Amino acid sequence: MDIKHYMQQLGQDARAASRQMAKADTTIKDQALRTIAATLRREKDALLAANRQDVEAAKAKDMDAAMLDRLTLTEKSVAAMAEGLEQIASLPDPVGEISNLKYRPTGIQVGRMCVPLGVIGIIYEARPNVTIDAAGLCLKSGNATILRGGSEAIHCNRALVALVHDGLQKVGLPKAAVQVVETVNRAAVGELITMKEYVDVIVPRGGKGLIERISNEARIPVIRHLIGNCHVYVDDEADLAKALRIVENAKTQRLGTCNTAESLVIARAVAKDMLPPIANMLIAKGVEIRGCAETQALVPQARAATEEDYYAEYLAAIISCKVVADLDDAIAHINKYSSQHTEAIVTENYTHARHFLREVDSSSVMVNASTRFADGFEYGLGAEIGISTDKFHARGPVGLEGLTSLKYVVLGDGQVRG
Amino acid sequence: MDIKHYMQQLGQDARAASRQMAKADTTIKDQALRTIAATLRREKDALLAANRQDVEAAKAKDMDAAMLDRLTLTEKSVAAMAEGLEQIASLPDPVGEISNLKYRPTGIQVGRMCVPLGVIGIIYEARPNVTIDAAGLCLKSGNATILRGGSEAIHCNRALVALVHDGLQKVGLPKAAVQVVETVNRAAVGELITMKEYVDVIVPRGGKGLIERISNEARIPVIRHLIGNCHVYVDDEADLAKALRIVENAKTQRLGTCNTAESLVIARAVAKDMLPPIANMLIAKGVEIRGCAETQALVPQARAATEEDYYAEYLAAIISCKVVADLDDAIAHINKYSSQHTEAIVTENYTHARHFLREVDSSSVMVNASTRFADGFEYGLGAEIGISTDKFHARGPVGLEGLTSLKYVVLGDGQVRG
Repeated sequence: MDIKHYMQQLGQDARAASRQMAKADTTIKDQALRTIAATLRREKDALLAANRQDVEAAKAKDMDAAMLDRLTLTEKSVAAMAEGLEQIASLPDPVGEISNLKYRPTGIQVGRMCVPLGVIGIIYEARPNVTIDAAGLCLKSGNATILRGGSEAIHCNRALVALVHDGLQKVGLPKAAVQVVETVNRAAVGELITMKEYVDVIVPRGGKGLIERISNEARIPVIRHLIGNCHVYVDDEADLAKALRIVENAKTQRLGTCNTAESLVIARAVAKDMLPPIANMLIAKGVEIRGCAETQALVPQARAATEEDYYAEYLAAIISCKVVADLDDAIAHINKYSSQHTEAIVTENYTHARHFLREVDSSSVMVNASTRFADGFEYGLGAEIGISTDKFHARGPVGLEGLTSLKYVVLGDGQVRG
Repeated sequence: MDIKHYMQQLGQDARAASRQMAKADTTIKDQALRTIAATLRREKDALLAANRQDVEAAKAKDMDAAMLDRLTLTEKSVAAMAEGLEQIASLPDPVGEISNLKYRPTGIQVGRMCVPLGVIGIIYEARPNVTIDAAGLCLKSGNATILRGGSEAIHCNRALVALVHDGLQKVGLPKAAVQVVETVNRAAVGELITMKEYVDVIVPRGGKGLIERISNEARIPVIRHLIGNCHVYVDDEADLAKALRIVENAKTQRLGTCNTAESLVIARAVAKDMLPPIANMLIAKGVEIRGCAETQALVPQARAATEEDYYAEYLAAIISCKVVADLDDAIAHINKYSSQHTEAIVTENYTHARHFLREVDSSSVMVNASTRFADGFEYGLGAEIGISTDKFHARGPVGLEGLTSLKYVVLGDGQVRG
């Protein structure tokens, strides 16, 4: 069967399943999630065996250590997948909720009902946990999903989707609600991101290259998670203890996450007093500082920052640093260089906090809190399918609500328009 | 100056202006709207003169009557434009509103702030009223806008944008918040819909051809308003008087609007009793009926409907008609053929109404009300920039809220992630 025909068939089946999923009762969906979680725990050994096949093959092909780590399942990670599904089952079901149902002067009542987006295509690397995570979120939000994971995880993904199908069938939901692209042919992705009739949104999860390629070629809306060049701005009315604590956490708690701070911005009025202790703390933790001339004057160990440094998402023990004149200058710097992911101000000044919150154009804007909090779990969404750095549709961590839309409902007693 | 450079300059200026607009106070924005309205009334004669230039030129080029009608301004339409701006001024300002600000277990507070999308590109035909309408909505929602109206209205659009600039400057807002593409070169549209760095969303307003071309070529999200193939379903528990009133209004109140019904669906159990009186009412009003075999058996005047008829948006005195087995059959028929704009059920049955509302996948779903109500004003949005038949971002009538997004705000006291 040619790849186009194969993908179209997946799409048709997904579209049909999405109609069933959209009207499925909450209890049924939650039962499916809990059944899959239980089967995951019970079938753990078979799953780990399938995963070992993938891992051996990947090792033979010299996959790099970080990717291998993400590919490898352990008893612990299987348990975490099962728990994740149970958490999703315990979240409130957004689907069908009607909000703002108000009477209009004509006597009709107008409100908005939360509905699933329909069919969600998810493209990701060889990370088996994403298979379960994404399937769970799409299932709970009443969507059908077509999963295209990295081909290196194909054995494990097949085993996982078999468990998911088993759970769906046990509660009477259609198997096609969760489908895995079974071919490793790369043309499958090209089809998936252009089948407008069958796919409503694409969620790519992976590196910047993957996401840019997909958003350039897609003919379907994409929930994009580009880079996280997050800033911490230490204001001229910052509390030094808070600044130290927040910069330390934002930069060093984990180096490789998208909500890690990559740039420190500091007001000139306090740079002399606050930059040296902050810089020393970072240097003591092994962080390299790349700064402007003023930074270098205050921090002898700092290297000179280039223009590229201010745009960089290092995901490493490096931070860029910029001394700015004042709040407006800080906001302008951030709005120019940031990737619109997450920015924080450290300040005791009420008016500065207010302006920073309003004027910084990023998906999360914080006052006196670490950028590391930008996360679906920390925000109380219960789970996230990604963090959107776009403005259209979803912005910031995307949970169940981000996988839904609102349609208008109108209730009348025979009203007509005059 | 080449067209690419010209458009990039508009884009850069719009981006800079959007930062100013995003933080502008409500009072200032409302003053600008009211000032522009007052100037419109005062400069009415000059405006009508500019419009006459366009109309004369269009007549010389044999523009068709309907287009000429939309191009032509009158004293009354200028007054309506001014009133429209004053209405927008009186709407609540969505920008900056923070919702759901809740404490999390870590002590941080997390909420969502409504923010403008940024820069909105609007592409439309030679309809000068859209220039003012779109400028007003974008201004109030804190966005900058680049307007590309039909070249046949260029003189009038220039005059209008001069008034808008005058109003913006009087209150200290940047002129570049509202820009008109001054060239008639069609390559300008190609630039506008691909300048990702400078434009955040495209709103095409016009015929299906224009909208499809733009959504196929755009590299920026598009708020699409495709066709309105709206259905009225007369259920087996319909009240005949309501069915007659609703079908009459939905089909015949105005033939050429997107929320006009184009298809009648009726349950077999009541077709014999209800279809003849409904069909006679329509025929008496000059509407041609194109139906299935069962329709033709009950309505001798009905022509046979083709598959294309069921997909058609006639915008004319024609309606397609289909007799279905039951509610599920009706929902399946509608979900297959509709353009996901607006569908209505006529029923007295509570359970049927509930299922129809949940399962029909359209931007507006109605019970016992005319599809003609699907409109921003009727829904209480105050104004609309269009009706989205997509699910992503905005669905149904798009008012000020559809031109905004939500960012997360996090308030802390120095919290860091553990």
